[in-house]
Amino acid sequence: MSLTSQGHSLLIAWQLKNKIVLIVGGGEIASQRIDSILNTDAHIILVAPLDGLGSRTKQLIASHPNRIRHHDRLFSGSEELESVDMVLTALDDPERSREIVNMCRAAGIPVNAADIPDLCDFYFGAQIRDGPLQIMISTNGNGPRIASLIKGRLLKGLTGVEGNAIQRVGELRALLKERAPGIGGEIGRRRMKWMTDLCNTWQLEDFALLDRDLMQKLLDQGWEQNSIPSLEAIDIRSARVDKRRRDWLLVTKQTLLPSLIGILAGALCTACFMAGRRR
Amino acid sequence: MSLTSQGHSLLIAWQLKNKIVLIVGGGEIASQRIDSILNTDAHIILVAPLDGLGSRTKQLIASHPNRIRHHDRLFSGSEELESVDMVLTALDDPERSREIVNMCRAAGIPVNAADIPDLCDFYFGAQIRDGPLQIMISTNGNGPRIASLIKGRLLKGLTGVEGNAIQRVGELRALLKERAPGIGGEIGRRRMKWMTDLCNTWQLEDFALLDRDLMQKLLDQGWEQNSIPSLEAIDIRSARVDKRRRDWLLVTKQTLLPSLIGILAGALCTACFMAGRRR
Repeated sequence: MSLTSQGHSLLIAWQLKNKIVLIVGGGEIASQRIDSILNTDAHIILVAPLDGLGSRTKQLIASHPNRIRHHDRLFSGSEELESVDMVLTALDDPERSREIVNMCRAAGIPVNAADIPDLCDFYFGAQIRDGPLQIMISTNGNGPRIASLIKGRLLKGLTGVEGNAIQRVGELRALLKERAPGIGGEIGRRRMKWMTDLCNTWQLEDFALLDRDLMQKLLDQGWEQNSIPSLEAIDIRSARVDKRRRDWLLVTKQTLLPSLIGILAGALCTACFMAGRRR
Repeated sequence: MSLTSQGHSLLIAWQLKNKIVLIVGGGEIASQRIDSILNTDAHIILVAPLDGLGSRTKQLIASHPNRIRHHDRLFSGSEELESVDMVLTALDDPERSREIVNMCRAAGIPVNAADIPDLCDFYFGAQIRDGPLQIMISTNGNGPRIASLIKGRLLKGLTGVEGNAIQRVGELRALLKERAPGIGGEIGRRRMKWMTDLCNTWQLEDFALLDRDLMQKLLDQGWEQNSIPSLEAIDIRSARVDKRRRDWLLVTKQTLLPSLIGILAGALCTACFMAGRRR
């Protein structure tokens, strides 16, 4: 893995709470863009003639009347950009896309022009979502389709507990901030250090087992004592059982089953062979 | 995995070619920001008093004189934002951060204020980089540290060939565009469909084995004939050997070894048992 190569994009998590995203065009790519934006808290303005809408786009407009405002017309000019925070073009007409991009540049609005990388302030990529966990895969324009092959591989590394675990960590962090409020400075640094130490010590599976009571116990015995107790220390039979069962299942699947089958096969063959020789 | 939850960030790959990023502050977080930006093609202006610079920040300034311009002073005001495309604050002073963020908002410049999520247009996240492949992990502010735990899990799903494979796909796409030039329209759609079909059929390991000659062969026998040949069809002893060795190693590691040990153990025990009974 190279850490020094240049020319990369800057992968960032853009915040769209209470923002307005303008999508120009209504075909298949537009429907993918709508899907992406619906996952945020942004409102969508869709500008595209009704007779050019794809079936999926029509469905999305119908099922999200409070999130999507559809204007049944062609993009008319820079007056459309007023109060808009982001623009996504999904047009088959590269010249018109270029014109819209130029208007966005003049207005200082971030813009993505589908299928014309040179015109884009940013690219989209394949994504994995699990509750508060989001993972984005970018191939830097080298092969957007291949990103979903990578996605398949990444999914193999996850157990499915991650989104839940992160949710619990967020709740724990909020409880900690209630106990020890304040932004930045000494208290901020101490909070950050304790949370970091905890995350370095605990498994994600441990966090997923936390409920509100256990969180308070953890803060009592951990934060207040300036220490990092183990999950077992603050709880807990159920945690140990769950953890053991998990480890056992993994070992069984990977090693024990083939070994057992081997032992049986070996025993059977040897028994047959020796029984045959005895006669 | 939930695909319908809202309130997420929009994960995007921001383009910084020939852009200028202003970083305010010079401590540890500033050095992390510099690392992130050095990976792109952007130039960095760093505004921070010399006596407040961290050791890593000093190193980075010294080793990248053509990429980083350091101003040894406090941030002076909105005139600093001229020609700047992105601003990252890394200050211990939340009030000053807020003032800078407000100036950025007025100037329409995207801004991230370290440790103050409410003020950020975008967040950073843990990253995996392998050549043109970039993966970003975001916990939506719920636990930045935990993202690196997720990173460890994702790495388990990768074999290490992915960056190289994507590089080759990019080269193939460029060769295809030379053969069949034009942006958008019918030819653009046909190119995209062929590349998609190819990516759906081939393994990443197959792409990693492509050299320039094989790419031309693939375009001759694939693109020109409107078909998707297998790697074996356009080549190739070496590919088959490599592929077989890979599959063999994987099967051996996961199943055959425990089975073999099991067979031996079973045979040994049975032999001992039966030999004992015979006496």
